[in-house]
Amino acid sequence: MIPRYARPEMTAIWSQETKFRIWFEIEAHATDALAALGVVPKEAAKTIWEKGGTARFDVDRIDEIERVTKHDVIAFLTHLAEFVGPDSRFVHQGLTSSDVLDTCFSVQLKRAADLLIADVDALLAALKRRAKEHKRTVCIGRSHGIHAEPVTFGLKMAEAYAEFDRCRARLVAAREEIATCAISGAVGTFANIDPRVEIHVAEALGLRPEPVSTQVIPRDRHAMFFATLGVVASSVERLAIEIRHLQRTEVLEAEEYFSPGQKGSSAMPHKRNPVLTENLTGLARVVRAAVTPALEDVALWHERDISHSSVERYIGPDATITLDFALARLTGVVDKLLVYPERMVANMDRLGGLVHSQRILLALTQAGVSREDAYRLVQRNAMKVWESYHHGGSSTVDFLSELLKDPEVRAALSEEEIRDKFDLDYHLKHVETIFARVFGE
Amino acid sequence: MIPRYARPEMTAIWSQETKFRIWFEIEAHATDALAALGVVPKEAAKTIWEKGGTARFDVDRIDEIERVTKHDVIAFLTHLAEFVGPDSRFVHQGLTSSDVLDTCFSVQLKRAADLLIADVDALLAALKRRAKEHKRTVCIGRSHGIHAEPVTFGLKMAEAYAEFDRCRARLVAAREEIATCAISGAVGTFANIDPRVEIHVAEALGLRPEPVSTQVIPRDRHAMFFATLGVVASSVERLAIEIRHLQRTEVLEAEEYFSPGQKGSSAMPHKRNPVLTENLTGLARVVRAAVTPALEDVALWHERDISHSSVERYIGPDATITLDFALARLTGVVDKLLVYPERMVANMDRLGGLVHSQRILLALTQAGVSREDAYRLVQRNAMKVWESYHHGGSSTVDFLSELLKDPEVRAALSEEEIRDKFDLDYHLKHVETIFARVFGE
Amino acid sequence: MIPRYARPEMTAIWSQETKFRIWFEIEAHATDALAALGVVPKEAAKTIWEKGGTARFDVDRIDEIERVTKHDVIAFLTHLAEFVGPDSRFVHQGLTSSDVLDTCFSVQLKRAADLLIADVDALLAALKRRAKEHKRTVCIGRSHGIHAEPVTFGLKMAEAYAEFDRCRARLVAAREEIATCAISGAVGTFANIDPRVEIHVAEALGLRPEPVSTQVIPRDRHAMFFATLGVVASSVERLAIEIRHLQRTEVLEAEEYFSPGQKGSSAMPHKRNPVLTENLTGLARVVRAAVTPALEDVALWHERDISHSSVERYIGPDATITLDFALARLTGVVDKLLVYPERMVANMDRLGGLVHSQRILLALTQAGVSREDAYRLVQRNAMKVWESYHHGGSSTVDFLSELLKDPEVRAALSEEEIRDKFDLDYHLKHVETIFARVFGE
Amino acid sequence: MIPRYARPEMTAIWSQETKFRIWFEIEAHATDALAALGVVPKEAAKTIWEKGGTARFDVDRIDEIERVTKHDVIAFLTHLAEFVGPDSRFVHQGLTSSDVLDTCFSVQLKRAADLLIADVDALLAALKRRAKEHKRTVCIGRSHGIHAEPVTFGLKMAEAYAEFDRCRARLVAAREEIATCAISGAVGTFANIDPRVEIHVAEALGLRPEPVSTQVIPRDRHAMFFATLGVVASSVERLAIEIRHLQRTEVLEAEEYFSPGQKGSSAMPHKRNPVLTENLTGLARVVRAAVTPALEDVALWHERDISHSSVERYIGPDATITLDFALARLTGVVDKLLVYPERMVANMDRLGGLVHSQRILLALTQAGVSREDAYRLVQRNAMKVWESYHHGGSSTVDFLSELLKDPEVRAALSEEEIRDKFDLDYHLKHVETIFARVFGE
Repeated sequence: MIPRYARPEMTAIWSQETKFRIWFEIEAHATDALAALGVVPKEAAKTIWEKGGTARFDVDRIDEIERVTKHDVIAFLTHLAEFVGPDSRFVHQGLTSSDVLDTCFSVQLKRAADLLIADVDALLAALKRRAKEHKRTVCIGRSHGIHAEPVTFGLKMAEAYAEFDRCRARLVAAREEIATCAISGAVGTFANIDPRVEIHVAEALGLRPEPVSTQVIPRDRHAMFFATLGVVASSVERLAIEIRHLQRTEVLEAEEYFSPGQKGSSAMPHKRNPVLTENLTGLARVVRAAVTPALEDVALWHERDISHSSVERYIGPDATITLDFALARLTGVVDKLLVYPERMVANMDRLGGLVHSQRILLALTQAGVSREDAYRLVQRNAMKVWESYHHGGSSTVDFLSELLKDPEVRAALSEEEIRDKFDLDYHLKHVETIFARVFGE
Repeated sequence: MIPRYARPEMTAIWSQETKFRIWFEIEAHATDALAALGVVPKEAAKTIWEKGGTARFDVDRIDEIERVTKHDVIAFLTHLAEFVGPDSRFVHQGLTSSDVLDTCFSVQLKRAADLLIADVDALLAALKRRAKEHKRTVCIGRSHGIHAEPVTFGLKMAEAYAEFDRCRARLVAAREEIATCAISGAVGTFANIDPRVEIHVAEALGLRPEPVSTQVIPRDRHAMFFATLGVVASSVERLAIEIRHLQRTEVLEAEEYFSPGQKGSSAMPHKRNPVLTENLTGLARVVRAAVTPALEDVALWHERDISHSSVERYIGPDATITLDFALARLTGVVDKLLVYPERMVANMDRLGGLVHSQRILLALTQAGVSREDAYRLVQRNAMKVWESYHHGGSSTVDFLSELLKDPEVRAALSEEEIRDKFDLDYHLKHVETIFARVFGE
Repeated sequence: MIPRYARPEMTAIWSQETKFRIWFEIEAHATDALAALGVVPKEAAKTIWEKGGTARFDVDRIDEIERVTKHDVIAFLTHLAEFVGPDSRFVHQGLTSSDVLDTCFSVQLKRAADLLIADVDALLAALKRRAKEHKRTVCIGRSHGIHAEPVTFGLKMAEAYAEFDRCRARLVAAREEIATCAISGAVGTFANIDPRVEIHVAEALGLRPEPVSTQVIPRDRHAMFFATLGVVASSVERLAIEIRHLQRTEVLEAEEYFSPGQKGSSAMPHKRNPVLTENLTGLARVVRAAVTPALEDVALWHERDISHSSVERYIGPDATITLDFALARLTGVVDKLLVYPERMVANMDRLGGLVHSQRILLALTQAGVSREDAYRLVQRNAMKVWESYHHGGSSTVDFLSELLKDPEVRAALSEEEIRDKFDLDYHLKHVETIFARVFGE
Repeated sequence: MIPRYARPEMTAIWSQETKFRIWFEIEAHATDALAALGVVPKEAAKTIWEKGGTARFDVDRIDEIERVTKHDVIAFLTHLAEFVGPDSRFVHQGLTSSDVLDTCFSVQLKRAADLLIADVDALLAALKRRAKEHKRTVCIGRSHGIHAEPVTFGLKMAEAYAEFDRCRARLVAAREEIATCAISGAVGTFANIDPRVEIHVAEALGLRPEPVSTQVIPRDRHAMFFATLGVVASSVERLAIEIRHLQRTEVLEAEEYFSPGQKGSSAMPHKRNPVLTENLTGLARVVRAAVTPALEDVALWHERDISHSSVERYIGPDATITLDFALARLTGVVDKLLVYPERMVANMDRLGGLVHSQRILLALTQAGVSREDAYRLVQRNAMKVWESYHHGGSSTVDFLSELLKDPEVRAALSEEEIRDKFDLDYHLKHVETIFARVFGE
């Protein structure tokens, strides 16, 4: 966890304090269930909640005990006993450490997923707002980085919206994957604990009982969880790279928000760097880095080995904290993104109207010109524009004017017909349809 | 694709012949839709189906044309025209190459997913059969590779069943992810094609229309697909490694099937290597290797760049063909796995009953012996067993006998009480519950 | 292996024919050594070379035998006997299959490394030529995609040269890593084979003896080899992405070579897509995908398990063939790259000279203007230029003219002093130094 | 960074304090060079060393300043000025932030490499000691997890020694890769700084000047560095897994050191878990996780983008700290590993001498028995042993006795000849040769 890429709410999920609080809840709920089954006194279960529920666990004290006992759960239980008193002997009856550890990890991942889903919701709201704002803000669409045909900036936002809407659904599924509880003993046979305890604890914590565990919850669940974070991170990267491209000096169709007084901009006003989205590109790599170790964690030996544990100490906090930060940062970028419609038009115009060459070609053939001749006519005018662009900053030759001046073209098409092919609305006629599909409105 | 790790049905999905057949279907369905919209003659659409539907496309001929045109879709259309005749000019009207290529890829991945799901179904059937067969075949459960408490071999199979049942659900979701169709033109605006064409083609091919495409179907879908294959491969690895462990010479609780006449076994009968499951371990790595490039493919530039294309030429066939092969091989291994209950008992007995030491400890304290004394009593008998094991092949000392001989133990527990703690049924009492959870029966 | 991304020489290394030829050489050299040690008759060793050396091994025949024997090396030896006759019984004496398989893999990887190093040499030659050609072709340097200060196109090529020169050294080291030979028997103890046989075979094949093998050559060597290919692939990606950026419509400072007659360019002359470098971006991902499985192959169980074998059947050919193709394609791209110095100047000029603002700022402070005032003066002129750019295609305001018109600026700096700060040569003064460092000339 | 997997010396390299101290040294050395070139007063350079050299930089104060300036290097320089006074204006003249940041990162990685190399040296010493100690401690060699032929425990250690000796060489090469210095300005042209400054700073810090940088040091160097760590981590994993296998209950040929009084062992003495090596297996995954992001960092845009920066904030400390910890832990494990020669013999004997079946087979054929008959004879005796093992804990039948009892066998071989084939020394005859190769003694 790198503090500068961490937000407090997600970080708190992974604090020692939170962990011990969840451990307490698991133990206390388990004791409730044991009391209901008559295994421990009901009074004891009550006492545990009363005294432990208000206790402020002391992380340093627990660490101190652990240095002696060499066992984290025992250290916690020893500390808990300092609050609860003699009834603490009824805590943890029949449980295995992993019952507590693994169920706690589920709770943490589930809470992390809750935050990530909320993050995506905020991002979706920003994307939707910007999409609608720029529904008909025309800009050039690019394939291979090369001008293709017009799109709108709103369509770009709609595309991102649809992508993150899918990411949301994936996160919901990922949350479902890891929201299970195991209180099943040393090898998962419930030899020393009644399965009804697991059912009770699961329900109390908003989890499902793991159908069959083996001291641990099977790690294919976690692999799926982290793989999903990797996909979401890749979508973050995609939008970040789009913005970085749009902010390039030569393109400059959009810019990360830059407050007027922000230092360093005064003498070199053009030097506004897309540092937030560059940063997001890197953070995406960091989140994705969790995927392979999570996949490697699946094949534990026999009923369990503990190789996954150290991996999860890193990737549990790192991947969720980093993705939470990245999503929030991306939301801020989208929300405040400076959009430059004038420059979008200017960029499109740089090629002097060449983006319409295909439509002219088609119009000529539909007007009865042979395919070969149509090509020749379009080509000779297009090449003039292109040559001019190719040797300077912007084309100084205008495709429309050239076409209007070309007698062979004019023999086939009227000025109105030619001008009509330069109509940008032609490209926008289905924008509403697409928006209806994406936003369902 | 490595022939020895490929099965014909999955391989066929990725053949040139299949690809061209799918291309034809996309084009023919699109022409149908265009005919219905009055853009092309209905008669032409009919002719295309009649003449193209029965045509045997010649891959070499298409390659030959492509060498001239340098464009695969144009090469195909040229070849198609050789069958269809003049009406072929109504094919591909308003479509972009990517409309055909990306939708074809969706169809291929969907079919691949269908096969993988069927593979998992076969594996689930084998696991269920073996689980029920060995529901109460006791073996030692191991944590950290060390004997812990008894489980059953059926429970191991049930665990794998539950895991692959989750994998099945993930594959169904992955199939849903990539089952979309895009017929939306050069930058996804439907500038030259009616969105209803896309809807028609999608329906005809069992796909959904992509809500917003940008010449290409967004690659987060494919990333999720391949990430899911990576998780399934990791589950394959887990079960493969379990079997490899069980087949180790010292363990030998199960063995990959070995036909009596199989070469090389005669003079060294012990040298039966778990080569199938070792192979599966490697194949899992191969399938997982597709995950990272698929994640890196998401962030295409602007409306599209073509960097994903070469990646998908490798991972599309490789990951699906390899996983299909791996699942089938694993099914065969499970189905015919030789299981040795006698050796399971023998292994458990190697430690002379030490696995029951915890229960004795508990019984002593419950009988009023102080925790400290109980420890001492258990320990002094346990250590005799352990020392004997530690210095030889198997323990020659029996924990039960030692306990029965120990007057201090006997002062607290009767012979019957002691023997009762060695009852394996104690550990099996919830097997039915777990089976009910997993198999829902 | 995807034929379209494969070149014949590298592909041949991985053919069955080559493999069997190498197997023969290993066996024949081993027999020579055994003959020298008096273990087998010298005459037999001679016969094997004579009859086997000219034999054309029949892959189909060997496959046929393997279907019966279920063992590839035995199948080959059986086929070899068909050429060699009775003396073939002296072949493979004391060897284990892995001795042949692993040593063969070393030979193949070494040859692959030879080709890759030659590929890099060709790329270096192209880079050096282009670097020198454009040593002083000025273009804007960009950090964060934003104009920074001038560089030259030759410097970009020099940077790539230095990077691939490092890659060359890495490939040489990687070749060294895997160039070892193991003829050490079932568990590497030379129980049934004299270590001198290994020494002889190693020398004959240009390999070193593996100091300690365990039936197999340790896989950390191969991991290092494939990790190195991953680094080289990433350098390919870097240069590919540089070219893609330079070819973007708005930038267009360089273009992949496009033959005048190349189809599709006529009507849309601007639609020249950087498909080769986009393809290289994807191929880099493919090569990198070999790294993780190669790392996972290291931890074989005990003296060996065979999990690495299937992995290597994929990544051995795939990673080397793909990287070979990528390096050759990149060399072609660099060699024939169309470079547009006029557009480089035009792009730099788009910001109306703003790239020199820092130098003016410094000159003002050196002329005694306070830091604060200097900022204010530069800023008010810079902002005019920027505003103009920000709202259109190119700046219509010129920074130099604005400065010359500004009385406060002129009070501190003469026209000559101001003009001097716009001198591009200022930025080129150490180009020779850098070239000397890189090209050592 | 996870405290429990971190050691102080490596952690200190990545502290804020260390970073600022290195920044200071870079700045002070650069100022020295500038003074020597007459750009700044020599007196000032002296003052900077005097006042800054003894200063205790206040991280909180720098953070406080950074919150205002939004720039880390400026914040540091501001703080430095608080110590140095007016002469601080001569610091950082002509430098770019990246000159400081990237060179600092080189220093940190170089120091990290120094520690890792020292770690490997300690590991090598432990391996060598254990190798020599157990040079002739016979144990069974296993391929595929199945008994093959005898090796010695010393050979296992020698193999690991050779592997880590290679790792050492790789780390030395990796250190060389990243030990470069860049003081070259905003786009690497030395426009505002003399190249001799870079040469001086490089020398003073034990680095080489980067031949051509572009504001940043090229990231292929760092990719190679982290890829190397990934390979070393995989070797750690290999040895860790070997030990985990040897400690399995059924095998128990070695055990991680367990202090007699260590808690939890008393009542369940067999439950000594190989938690250190399991942990190492996980840590290897963590270190390897740095490889892919490091490879993805290579392709920065144009002269630089800053996407690598966030990645390196994670993987710089995480990969080096974790690997340092892992190597040290592994050294401890090897150093104190409990080795059980008696159990090694017992395990080998479990198969009643079957490991010698191949030698008997060979002896029979050499004694003139036909290959077919020899097989039959060996097989009928071997199968008795195997059947007995297959149905119980250890074989109760002894291969040697059976052979001696078999009249057909005895017709071909004398008792002495048969017994001779059971001689373990046969397998050890080249142990010295291998040791000489590995340890060069």
